[in-house]
Amino acid sequence: MQTMSSRNIGTDLAPALKTTRWFNMDGSLSLDDLHGRVVVLLAFQMLCPGCVARSIPLAQKMQQMFENRNLVVIGLHTVFEHHDVMTPNALEVFLSEYRVSFPVGVDTPNEHGGTIPQTMEAYQMQGTPTWVLIDVNGRRRGQYFGSHDELALGVEIGALLSEMREPVGKSFESVKTDSEHCDSNGCQIGES
Amino acid sequence: MQTMSSRNIGTDLAPALKTTRWFNMDGSLSLDDLHGRVVVLLAFQMLCPGCVARSIPLAQKMQQMFENRNLVVIGLHTVFEHHDVMTPNALEVFLSEYRVSFPVGVDTPNEHGGTIPQTMEAYQMQGTPTWVLIDVNGRRRGQYFGSHDELALGVEIGALLSEMREPVGKSFESVKTDSEHCDSNGCQIGES
Amino acid sequence: MQTMSSRNIGTDLAPALKTTRWFNMDGSLSLDDLHGRVVVLLAFQMLCPGCVARSIPLAQKMQQMFENRNLVVIGLHTVFEHHDVMTPNALEVFLSEYRVSFPVGVDTPNEHGGTIPQTMEAYQMQGTPTWVLIDVNGRRRGQYFGSHDELALGVEIGALLSEMREPVGKSFESVKTDSEHCDSNGCQIGES
Amino acid sequence: MQTMSSRNIGTDLAPALKTTRWFNMDGSLSLDDLHGRVVVLLAFQMLCPGCVARSIPLAQKMQQMFENRNLVVIGLHTVFEHHDVMTPNALEVFLSEYRVSFPVGVDTPNEHGGTIPQTMEAYQMQGTPTWVLIDVNGRRRGQYFGSHDELALGVEIGALLSEMREPVGKSFESVKTDSEHCDSNGCQIGES
Repeated sequence: MQTMSSRNIGTDLAPALKTTRWFNMDGSLSLDDLHGRVVVLLAFQMLCPGCVARSIPLAQKMQQMFENRNLVVIGLHTVFEHHDVMTPNALEVFLSEYRVSFPVGVDTPNEHGGTIPQTMEAYQMQGTPTWVLIDVNGRRRGQYFGSHDELALGVEIGALLSEMREPVGKSFESVKTDSEHCDSNGCQIGES
Repeated sequence: MQTMSSRNIGTDLAPALKTTRWFNMDGSLSLDDLHGRVVVLLAFQMLCPGCVARSIPLAQKMQQMFENRNLVVIGLHTVFEHHDVMTPNALEVFLSEYRVSFPVGVDTPNEHGGTIPQTMEAYQMQGTPTWVLIDVNGRRRGQYFGSHDELALGVEIGALLSEMREPVGKSFESVKTDSEHCDSNGCQIGES
Repeated sequence: MQTMSSRNIGTDLAPALKTTRWFNMDGSLSLDDLHGRVVVLLAFQMLCPGCVARSIPLAQKMQQMFENRNLVVIGLHTVFEHHDVMTPNALEVFLSEYRVSFPVGVDTPNEHGGTIPQTMEAYQMQGTPTWVLIDVNGRRRGQYFGSHDELALGVEIGALLSEMREPVGKSFESVKTDSEHCDSNGCQIGES
Repeated sequence: MQTMSSRNIGTDLAPALKTTRWFNMDGSLSLDDLHGRVVVLLAFQMLCPGCVARSIPLAQKMQQMFENRNLVVIGLHTVFEHHDVMTPNALEVFLSEYRVSFPVGVDTPNEHGGTIPQTMEAYQMQGTPTWVLIDVNGRRRGQYFGSHDELALGVEIGALLSEMREPVGKSFESVKTDSEHCDSNGCQIGES
């Protein structure tokens, strides 16, 4: 379901990321470092079926599509259950086996002995996957729990990119059709 | 492949639609009627496998997602081969069997005995499917031949919608997760 | 739904095919010619969405998998509606655009002015797609209306093939994994 | 790739399963207990992407399709890498989150300090997923490494079932079409 989790989404800055370590990058990442760019944050758990089947592949696709452009895709491992088996070591193997190449931070465990890690709590997430969209000024503009629709996410990302006068779309390529008349992608003129 | 078919795409008005009749609507449709709204135009043939398998379902999804918003999805039947079997009567059956509900115009046959219909020729399309994106001022902002990527199309649409200060994204809902702890969409907090 | 349409399915011979012409082969085909081989018959209409999206691709896959083995895949165009647009000429274009390569017969129109063609009536089919399984002795062993499950169809075909001591399975290949450690198909030993 | 791993596949008994524990059942399972039934064995690792995306769902589908019939689907967790994170405890969480309901045994670790567990070694498997088909007499009739084709597996299972005079296919149901004329599954007669 959509979870615009509090009255001030869209106006307030996105809460800081509290992480213990990062994979797929040197050092660590903070949202402040990303001001001036649109940020797509995917909170997931490595043993969440919906995350593995749909959300992580979509995040991977976004990263490839927007490589070298003003959008950053980052993952956040927000473990709120079975902490003993979804450890950072297990996550490292998961990211390698699944060839996940975008930066993934490990959410800092709850300091009061609770099960919900700190960033997940700060964002009032309801579970995994959760998509968070952050604009060029660091404001949280959208937050969605569940397998969010690809087209809908694309539309929202396009709106955020256009706020920075990003020349959207010009660099996307359609799937090529092969030399034959009709293939699975389309039918070409002039070979009937 | 992407086909920004001429140097002036992005600045010039989209050529007028030349059609003999329309389905799924009363009367006929002209781009002039649609100024002030973003237009997504899908040119297809009813026997083009890529159109049927991917582009038409995506156009249908767009129409449902943007219902009552400032975006219009229209189809154009641009038959450039096998004219004898892809007739308007056959198209009518196709639209009914496939439950296509967006307006579909029939491109006007070539007046000089050629096989390429008039609107297809005016747009310099290379084949089907071809996606055309038209902004609120009637300018052709993008044109793509082949099965264009859903995420990429969404991003471009989002950018065009944002030019009209359309509150993008606020009305999209993520897929719901059921009452159980983890389902195919996600894992919910608080039931471990 | 499953439609073992009459009490004598499984024991009686499959009714003869009454056809006006055949595509993807020279001359015509009769079930008698096919005694000694298992026959998978797919009855479809070229504008039936379920046929186009699922059943025809599955029949095409079967034909390729069983090439040069004792199983024959044949299609039957059983038009029971919109006869004016699903003509043999339109079917010919459809088969070419969709690259259907198995033999397809055109069911003979109803002789008493009805809409149901003769073979479809003889088999008491409920609609399209309908799968019919015929054993090496020409007996109709199964008949199913709707998009039948791939695994279930495979199991039934395997049983019919084994009745002729066909060495089943020995010639099937699994998808190859590439040289890397883990790919989308699997993880290979000895490269960790 | 297909791996009929030794000259005597098809004639020799399947090697015994050496397991440390079982999930989704009380006690433990031995192939001897299963004589008289066809056994489909899926060897997998919980962090093998191909296993998770395709093979495990197919095994789950088989179990549901053949429930209460003479076929048994069993899983074997054959960990040959990253043993520290793919522990039995982690497997237990995986099976629960993914709702895997067929019996799954944990392959016994290599006794000589090697990485390949004992059953995996005895079967000369090349990696995961590996499908093993065992007939009613306990003979290993097929073994395949990689994401094996659903139709091909079905055919082989049908052949093994038919050896026990299992009335194959009679209990399978096709997908139902709804009350409307054409839906995604098919087109029904008599509502044109």
